[in-house]
Amino acid sequence: MDNIQIIALKESVLEDNDQDAKALREELRSRGTCLLNLMSAPGSGKTSTLLALNRAFAGRLRWAVMEADIDSAVDAKTMQEAGVPTVQLHTGGMCHLDADMTRQGIRALPIRDAELIVLENIGNLVCPAEFDTGAAINMTILSVPEGDDKPTKYPLMYEKCSVLVVNKIDTLPVFDFDKSRMEQAARMRNPDMEIFYISAKTGEGVQELADALVAKVKEWNAG
Amino acid sequence: MDNIQIIALKESVLEDNDQDAKALREELRSRGTCLLNLMSAPGSGKTSTLLALNRAFAGRLRWAVMEADIDSAVDAKTMQEAGVPTVQLHTGGMCHLDADMTRQGIRALPIRDAELIVLENIGNLVCPAEFDTGAAINMTILSVPEGDDKPTKYPLMYEKCSVLVVNKIDTLPVFDFDKSRMEQAARMRNPDMEIFYISAKTGEGVQELADALVAKVKEWNAG
Repeated sequence: MDNIQIIALKESVLEDNDQDAKALREELRSRGTCLLNLMSAPGSGKTSTLLALNRAFAGRLRWAVMEADIDSAVDAKTMQEAGVPTVQLHTGGMCHLDADMTRQGIRALPIRDAELIVLENIGNLVCPAEFDTGAAINMTILSVPEGDDKPTKYPLMYEKCSVLVVNKIDTLPVFDFDKSRMEQAARMRNPDMEIFYISAKTGEGVQELADALVAKVKEWNAG
Repeated sequence: MDNIQIIALKESVLEDNDQDAKALREELRSRGTCLLNLMSAPGSGKTSTLLALNRAFAGRLRWAVMEADIDSAVDAKTMQEAGVPTVQLHTGGMCHLDADMTRQGIRALPIRDAELIVLENIGNLVCPAEFDTGAAINMTILSVPEGDDKPTKYPLMYEKCSVLVVNKIDTLPVFDFDKSRMEQAARMRNPDMEIFYISAKTGEGVQELADALVAKVKEWNAG
């Protein structure tokens, strides 16, 4: 499929994922790489947000993307066509990635010196939240059509995330979505959560998110 | 929380879930009950579809709903206020239900002689598809904002489902959603899939879905 490199992930044999994740995080930091774990429900717009960020990064970051999916290479193809170094990871039915699977992906990336690596996790609000991938930043996307009650229904995901991106804000007039209700529920899970409102489609809010991420990555990599 | 019965599900100790699911399905059939397993991504509109169906059933079915969630009793409260016998099931973090957990829910329902029991499964397109709950009908909701590529990305879910409900069709003008592309991908997974287009919000298409479900339930229960 158009030169997309597809890696079939092997299930981890390690007992202690937390330990392994911590080791991966430190290893990455020592070589100046920030790993961002991007999570959301299916269809929240992970890939289109990454495409919009790529335009807004405007060459300020050397970055790469790992697209994790049960099957298909649709998203990796999209990212690669946009000029972002990409690898497609297939979990073979597994619902999440752990640190060892993440490491398998990083080794398969076509570049070695990325300042930012984004892991686009499986579209799932439950299982990915349970496994530390070694990421320095956990970021969740909530799209407006999903409703403002998601932080109440998927508490662990919101507890684990430090950055929340509310996507598809161009559709706010079409849906009943109460921003303050959502924010209140999200901050109950994580009082320090940073929240960005964007439309990956129209570009609204994307520059602010991109600038904040660039700053976070540079700060992390400076150690 | 307003007299909502909340059941904390115990993890199944049974080795063979397929065997157990088969036994539950036959047991339910023998007492004239059809179990429908309702699955979707978070925010596709499972609960609002059930509310719309309740109006469209117009008393033709004795039915009950089991609301499965990680946490919260938001959905059970909504259904109970609409007059539908309901129980809230808490999985305590687990990402799916199996047959034994489903049975725990059925035993806790406030009615014994339901012709239809709907299990509103955890919002997740991956794990619930892997476990037979004992349902006679597996139904998935795909909402328009999620995109037309979901059958390609979550193949097992589409393989397991016999009824696909495409919800939020009132938002078709706002999103790029190619019906024929979606249908083609869905039927690749299950050629016999029945597809219904509805808007739980405006009511469009709901009567046709309700009529089809009433017919299916009566046929199943007639054995």
